[in-house]
Amino acid sequence: MTNKSILGFEVEKQSFDSLGVPRARAAKLTLPGSLGKSHEIQTPVFMPVGTVGSVKGITPGDLRTMSAQIILGNTYHLYLRPGHFRVERLGELHQFMAWDGPILTDSGGFQVFSLAGLNKIDDEGVTFQSHLDGSSHRFTPELSMEIQKALGSDIVMAFDQCPPYPAERDQVRAAMSRTVRWAERGLNVPLKPHQARFGIVQGGLYEDLRIQSAQEITSMPFDGFAIGGLSIGETPELMQKMAAHTAPLLPLHRPRYLMGVGRPEDLVEGVRAGIDMFDCVMPTRNARNGQLFTSEGKVNIKNAKYAESKEPLDPECDCEACTHYTRAYLRHLFVSKELLSARLNTIHNLTYYIRIMKQMREAILDDRFEEWAKTFYRKRGHDVR
Amino acid sequence: MTNKSILGFEVEKQSFDSLGVPRARAAKLTLPGSLGKSHEIQTPVFMPVGTVGSVKGITPGDLRTMSAQIILGNTYHLYLRPGHFRVERLGELHQFMAWDGPILTDSGGFQVFSLAGLNKIDDEGVTFQSHLDGSSHRFTPELSMEIQKALGSDIVMAFDQCPPYPAERDQVRAAMSRTVRWAERGLNVPLKPHQARFGIVQGGLYEDLRIQSAQEITSMPFDGFAIGGLSIGETPELMQKMAAHTAPLLPLHRPRYLMGVGRPEDLVEGVRAGIDMFDCVMPTRNARNGQLFTSEGKVNIKNAKYAESKEPLDPECDCEACTHYTRAYLRHLFVSKELLSARLNTIHNLTYYIRIMKQMREAILDDRFEEWAKTFYRKRGHDVR
Repeated sequence: MTNKSILGFEVEKQSFDSLGVPRARAAKLTLPGSLGKSHEIQTPVFMPVGTVGSVKGITPGDLRTMSAQIILGNTYHLYLRPGHFRVERLGELHQFMAWDGPILTDSGGFQVFSLAGLNKIDDEGVTFQSHLDGSSHRFTPELSMEIQKALGSDIVMAFDQCPPYPAERDQVRAAMSRTVRWAERGLNVPLKPHQARFGIVQGGLYEDLRIQSAQEITSMPFDGFAIGGLSIGETPELMQKMAAHTAPLLPLHRPRYLMGVGRPEDLVEGVRAGIDMFDCVMPTRNARNGQLFTSEGKVNIKNAKYAESKEPLDPECDCEACTHYTRAYLRHLFVSKELLSARLNTIHNLTYYIRIMKQMREAILDDRFEEWAKTFYRKRGHDVR
Repeated sequence: MTNKSILGFEVEKQSFDSLGVPRARAAKLTLPGSLGKSHEIQTPVFMPVGTVGSVKGITPGDLRTMSAQIILGNTYHLYLRPGHFRVERLGELHQFMAWDGPILTDSGGFQVFSLAGLNKIDDEGVTFQSHLDGSSHRFTPELSMEIQKALGSDIVMAFDQCPPYPAERDQVRAAMSRTVRWAERGLNVPLKPHQARFGIVQGGLYEDLRIQSAQEITSMPFDGFAIGGLSIGETPELMQKMAAHTAPLLPLHRPRYLMGVGRPEDLVEGVRAGIDMFDCVMPTRNARNGQLFTSEGKVNIKNAKYAESKEPLDPECDCEACTHYTRAYLRHLFVSKELLSARLNTIHNLTYYIRIMKQMREAILDDRFEEWAKTFYRKRGHDVR
């Protein structure tokens, strides 16, 4: 594959495992941008999820403070409300939500299968019911592209079929084949000049199907490649194993994105496997549920033992929640259902995710990723892997 | 009354109405502070309400950005959760919530009558049920002082009985008399050295009772005086009339606080009457309900006519909501029930309230308050008063 992509991807450091397989790497991803300036993303990178035009509870200013480099927007949600053409008329997603950094939009595929009401799938597309009002809608690979084109995101994802877990081999194979055909159809829809496009490898937990899917998808002129269909109910061990199996099947000089993953340790294992990009609702959703990530492991801030704790949530964290407030206050806000709780917790969890990604990048660049990972697991009280 | 108060109150400008009654004024209120630095408050001033340890949805940093000078905390709520002694152990309310500016706490009187479940009042105090879990509690004038002492607020309010509206004259007179006796009892409870103490004038909508209450309460050694029992269901006109009747009954050289008031036009009429301090949940509560205050009047941000409006909410406002986002985006956040909606709307409404207070202060200092008020009403499309 020639590097005629509008997306630049410069691998700065590439490590190899004991078998010589390329693994953890640090890279610079560049995108042309739609607002008169190009974007540079340093990988590995975590993308906070801004489902429906905002990262829940926080502002673009907050995202900049925590050094978020790129965020994710959801095609399914924005299509339903406020509508993609409305977003386009309001200056596309960047201007609509006042975020001038890069945005990746998903294809809507995952949501129409997991979130929408009764859905009916055929080779042409998917008919589904809105989770908001039960109204009937239909997505096709072409419409998914048109929606993302209107949203004006910087990275557009191909429309895929994500089979459930567990699923029979035949069902997974059928979804994989359909995903390949849909990828081809989507490629025929022109995007805006600044938009890069990623293909998605499916194949469930079947190693041979992952190989076949990767071969077919990477033969198409995508700017980057994602591993989809993981973190949907299988064990973390199976997920990590399948990501590590699939990552080396993707081109070395294209970005690799592990969709919807995951816990901090899943990010570490994903980076170890050679993944460049991640997204997950876990830091933001858990924040709203009082589940906080710290350098010493998880904290359930609701716990009575924090009721009079004058300690910061995480002494290693420089976020607003950790530098201004005690665990006691954060617990009080959560227990009292104060709005500020979700905001401070979200700022903290995202800051944590972004910090460990930055630390991993620096460790890779310094040839000490394995050492960093050991310390990471030891401090959290896990067995050292 | 001699000016031996720990509270300083310097009237910088005092206007008089056509009958020679002292009316709108600008002053500097100083308080010793508990964190090693004194506080100066420029009046007239609006106090954002931080019910239970946070101004809902925003941070102390946000309060400083909008130039909030003093906030209010609720004794009833903080007593129930997290508990006043716990707050004291965590460094009193200032350190607990990381707000180093001045704090006024109410007495809990209003809440035990309006918010708590079944309450039973006698001369000694009030027994009530928690609105959280129905548990039984009892407030006395002494306990209200002890709670506020533990919270460490800068201004402590006397425990009063606020009769409902409408109420018979005898009922209002009885509540007024009880409020006087409770004020005396509260004065016998020592506070912390930095805490000033305000008495509360009751008397409902009966002019003679207001006179009698003011005479009795102002004969006691309070550092400032509040007008209570208004804005509880009577018409705005009656409220404004009674505030204007009562304000001149209070000492010229002590701060005057109109409790729980009100709409922007109520603030204007309160300032005109000679009030120095105001608090109200309206800007924060309405923000969460999508009711926004602008220089041209109220905006219901949910309204479909804003769905594609690229205009800022209020072009005269310099808050984060108005300088970063369109009406269309603010509407989208509200309609989609995004957490960010409450935050941005709250920042806006409080910024608006604080700005008009500042404008009124400057107008008073420049001898052009009436002119300012005329413009205020004209821009909002009201009849000029």
